[in-house]
Amino acid sequence: MQLLDGTSCSQQIRQEIAKEVDEIKSNGDRPPHLAAILVGNDGASQNYVAMKARDCDEVGFASTVISMKAAISEKELLDKIADLNADNDIDGFIVQLPLPAHIDEHKVILAIDPKKDVDGFCPENVGNMSLGLPTYLSATPNGIMELFRRYKIETEGKHCVVLGRSNIVGTPMAILLSRNTAPGNATVTIAHSRTEGLKELCRSADILIVAIGKTEFVTADMVKEGAVVIDVGQTRVQDSSKKSGFRNVGDVDFESVKNKCSYITYVTGGVGPMTRASLLQNTLKAYQRR
Amino acid sequence: MQLLDGTSCSQQIRQEIAKEVDEIKSNGDRPPHLAAILVGNDGASQNYVAMKARDCDEVGFASTVISMKAAISEKELLDKIADLNADNDIDGFIVQLPLPAHIDEHKVILAIDPKKDVDGFCPENVGNMSLGLPTYLSATPNGIMELFRRYKIETEGKHCVVLGRSNIVGTPMAILLSRNTAPGNATVTIAHSRTEGLKELCRSADILIVAIGKTEFVTADMVKEGAVVIDVGQTRVQDSSKKSGFRNVGDVDFESVKNKCSYITYVTGGVGPMTRASLLQNTLKAYQRR
Repeated sequence: MQLLDGTSCSQQIRQEIAKEVDEIKSNGDRPPHLAAILVGNDGASQNYVAMKARDCDEVGFASTVISMKAAISEKELLDKIADLNADNDIDGFIVQLPLPAHIDEHKVILAIDPKKDVDGFCPENVGNMSLGLPTYLSATPNGIMELFRRYKIETEGKHCVVLGRSNIVGTPMAILLSRNTAPGNATVTIAHSRTEGLKELCRSADILIVAIGKTEFVTADMVKEGAVVIDVGQTRVQDSSKKSGFRNVGDVDFESVKNKCSYITYVTGGVGPMTRASLLQNTLKAYQRR
Repeated sequence: MQLLDGTSCSQQIRQEIAKEVDEIKSNGDRPPHLAAILVGNDGASQNYVAMKARDCDEVGFASTVISMKAAISEKELLDKIADLNADNDIDGFIVQLPLPAHIDEHKVILAIDPKKDVDGFCPENVGNMSLGLPTYLSATPNGIMELFRRYKIETEGKHCVVLGRSNIVGTPMAILLSRNTAPGNATVTIAHSRTEGLKELCRSADILIVAIGKTEFVTADMVKEGAVVIDVGQTRVQDSSKKSGFRNVGDVDFESVKNKCSYITYVTGGVGPMTRASLLQNTLKAYQRR
């Protein structure tokens, strides 16, 4: 079994980006600038946004974090988005999800200028992705494609099972892997909570991508010998033995599954850093497009 | 085996639409208006466009067919599209594909105002479809969903194999069937020319949708007993015994497959009329949105 090391792989990507930023700055131009809107004080969201800002620092991007109270109105958030759409100093921005229940997530995503939508969540960008046109690729699926690319994992003709059909992971992942590209050209099955015979289906997968949001859902009996297993899940579980009071648990029972795999990601240092690296790639692209 | 009768099913849809158009007209309003641009003189394309115009007549829509020579420049076509985008009397329009090789199909599709893109081919509409937001659904996949709906064919939890991954049939079909809707909630596999073990995969399908563009590709040994088989293929094959000099052949070997199916479509009177009915539904929607 080989661990797919998202930490070192994303570091490599950040170094590549930092080099490009150096060139930009040496030409006397301003660096790319990413903004993030954070609503409320969810611990995990705060942590993600802080890490994204730190990533920007590391590669030489400018970054701005806009913190808004959980009680803000939908209109206040939409107004802030309109400001960022119009702000020529900002190349791209994200609104950290999830949002408080009183705010319509779809409305918020639709308000973002597609040219600045570096999360790749807007309809226009999702459609471009599906059609194989230039776009901002949704960060998590793109991060996983980068892992396949950099570890030279063959996907062509392989049976890939994607567990989960969310708009930001499962569905775009399935589309990307089914396209006539490299990596890609896989035979892809989209499975979900309504799938019958799920265990058997998972056992037929050469590549199993798990984004179902259920801790340690995939166990060894669901994995084919020699399969590639990608764990997108990340749930905070209380753990009094940790200083933070919690630990992150994936959707894959790593300890039992790892011995059957050819390649596997771990809940930390796996898909997470690759997702953040994709966001940097998209921000650089947004800068270059302007 | 029951034949899925796209002719009668689409007639039912046209009657529903005609009723709505009657109401519109009885309120003193103008009827919905569909335009179609036809470039060149490909026989099949001329035939499709003529049928679409006839459908409009039947339901009481206005229709305009704009015929352009095969030799027109890309710019001339783009100018015509700009005219239609700006024309307040036209609710929606299509550009009949395929286009002559010297014209960039993507550029043409991107030029269509998404609000008038009743084929549902623009990135914004494709993205809305993927995200489950209101949109113009791509006509063929939507027509097939209507067949499932009207024949009460259960898709939830079923294994659906889609053969072919085109932007206008295979990929949107897979997305629609995998969503949490009814029909929908299927476990969907996207298969294509690079798929390994295709026969076995097809045999595992409860629902098999074939859009691979190879005549009589699916034979009885590739079909599970009791499966639902949808044939999207339609290729003109020379046949001197016919007055027209050709006959239409599907991607499914109907004669051998039909006896194994619970439901099946035939190459004529199957998916084709349902596709055209979807176009009428989208045009009505375009009218209502304005």
